[in-house]
Amino acid sequence: MRLRMTKLYHIAVVGATGAVGVEMFRVLERRGFPVASIRAFGSKRSAGKSAVFHDEKIPVAELGRESFRGIDLALFSAGTTVAREFAPIARDAGAIVIDNSSTFRMDPEVPLVIPEINGDDAKLHRGIIANPNCTTAVALMAIYPLHRVFTVKRVFAASYQAVSGSGARAIAELEQQVRAAAESQPARAEVYPHPIAFNVLPQVDAFLESGYTKEEMKMQNEGRRIMHHPEFCASVTCVRVPVYRAHSVAVSAEFAEPISVERAREVLAKAPGLELVDEPARNRYPMPLHVAGKDNCEVGRVRRDCAFENGLAFWVSGDQLLKGAALNAVQIAELL
Amino acid sequence: MRLRMTKLYHIAVVGATGAVGVEMFRVLERRGFPVASIRAFGSKRSAGKSAVFHDEKIPVAELGRESFRGIDLALFSAGTTVAREFAPIARDAGAIVIDNSSTFRMDPEVPLVIPEINGDDAKLHRGIIANPNCTTAVALMAIYPLHRVFTVKRVFAASYQAVSGSGARAIAELEQQVRAAAESQPARAEVYPHPIAFNVLPQVDAFLESGYTKEEMKMQNEGRRIMHHPEFCASVTCVRVPVYRAHSVAVSAEFAEPISVERAREVLAKAPGLELVDEPARNRYPMPLHVAGKDNCEVGRVRRDCAFENGLAFWVSGDQLLKGAALNAVQIAELL
Repeated sequence: MRLRMTKLYHIAVVGATGAVGVEMFRVLERRGFPVASIRAFGSKRSAGKSAVFHDEKIPVAELGRESFRGIDLALFSAGTTVAREFAPIARDAGAIVIDNSSTFRMDPEVPLVIPEINGDDAKLHRGIIANPNCTTAVALMAIYPLHRVFTVKRVFAASYQAVSGSGARAIAELEQQVRAAAESQPARAEVYPHPIAFNVLPQVDAFLESGYTKEEMKMQNEGRRIMHHPEFCASVTCVRVPVYRAHSVAVSAEFAEPISVERAREVLAKAPGLELVDEPARNRYPMPLHVAGKDNCEVGRVRRDCAFENGLAFWVSGDQLLKGAALNAVQIAELL
Repeated sequence: MRLRMTKLYHIAVVGATGAVGVEMFRVLERRGFPVASIRAFGSKRSAGKSAVFHDEKIPVAELGRESFRGIDLALFSAGTTVAREFAPIARDAGAIVIDNSSTFRMDPEVPLVIPEINGDDAKLHRGIIANPNCTTAVALMAIYPLHRVFTVKRVFAASYQAVSGSGARAIAELEQQVRAAAESQPARAEVYPHPIAFNVLPQVDAFLESGYTKEEMKMQNEGRRIMHHPEFCASVTCVRVPVYRAHSVAVSAEFAEPISVERAREVLAKAPGLELVDEPARNRYPMPLHVAGKDNCEVGRVRRDCAFENGLAFWVSGDQLLKGAALNAVQIAELL
């Protein structure tokens, strides 16, 4: 064994008790990130709780203006309000911020990065780097490698999004509604406007004037930035489903170049961060239950699209807390 | 009140104990169908059970070659094997057969009918009429009225299909898997190749050589016949979701004529058998939990499609045991 002289980093995790925050600690551990020290921050409500890093309890402190003194890397997953106020504070204190909220994703001064796609963009940062939307990240992991070879023009997509995408409270809400159903009690809905147990909700995030939701437009808006492809079009329907973890997306994609299923399979099988799980004869295809907890996204159901000239239909699943959030954030940190 | 001299019909329900069969009795009751007598048939396994019609127990008899003597109308929902063998027997015995399986749907001698769309086709029958696939029926209830005005060219669709579409055993399987999860027991999967609780399965029905499943091609194949529109294209991904009842479909549709959201809404609001539920500002849109048990399908999330020139995106939900099966079958019978 060789000893490596690696720089060690002082890290802050903001939103440490949330569904993504908890994963941040797990991913840093698992990938052996060079940590000098790690601090956990949360809201007033979370202060006093604790996070766990390598079996050590890390007390969660209330986030404040002085929290980032001596911090090299701040991993934010605490929503838009916190990011807007505290990300600039962290940056000005000398930390590099990787933010998981939508706050800075369309800011031309902030790189929006999926390491397997546009890792080089991360180097252009001015202190803040944005992590993409989870559904977008999962879908682009399959769309981009195809785009590199066949040039994607547009996609039609429908999502099947897990409740953990809405955080820990949504997980508890689904559990509670399932128990209520077992006891023939009415379902109480607080996180979502309607019950999610044994239901699907064709709404994720708020509605725009156009009739699309914000979430639905992220694949096109963020996809254009991440793929450096300003003409990319994506018509998406985002739907919440009663799944605890991992998002799935059904995609029909049109390409400028002729595409065959055989060549597409070759390209997908070699794409980084992606696994081709596509054996229909053995009922093998990506599913949230199998991909949950895995770093790699999975693609399958690859077939020639019957309604596009140069088209391909496929199905992608990915753990949105990992590739869609914590893993991608740590991968960005590793690039730097 | 006027007394009407209505002919009364001798009816046989084949597959009387299945998820759709049970609904057949309910729909006949609810719509006041002119019933002279009603008999219930099932497999050997179901013989001895009973169905209920107007609070009266109807014993389920094992289906046999002599079952259709004196029957005017035979409502089949017993799968392909039974339909292939017994529908011709029922027809030759003088009954009109309305079959819910896929057996005769592509047979040019057998009309495939959704009363609100091509009711006149039913009159061309030679003893057998086919009921369409449930997902196709639900989607076409919204696609067809738009097609009449704007001429549909192609659709991209993804489905969210309830377990009751696979029959009573699938309902029990989801219930059992949810209980197992509550007790941290592994899920047993028998009806489906994988657990359906807290999961989604991108497979409904068997795979074809093309990579599409049989179910996925039904929207195009059956849609062409029902709409009398041989150029109609539909690229569909069919997905089973942990919902007990009612299917939903996310649709992006391209039309030959220019289409506006306002005109589309007017057309959909007036379409028979369909309700426009589309108030995003109040979080009102179609959902399986609300549409279950309703005769009408619901359409909402109507918006100008951002990836098609003359395109519309929308979301349809419908009770597939009713409009997708029992209700449609009884509506066909009412036409005759």
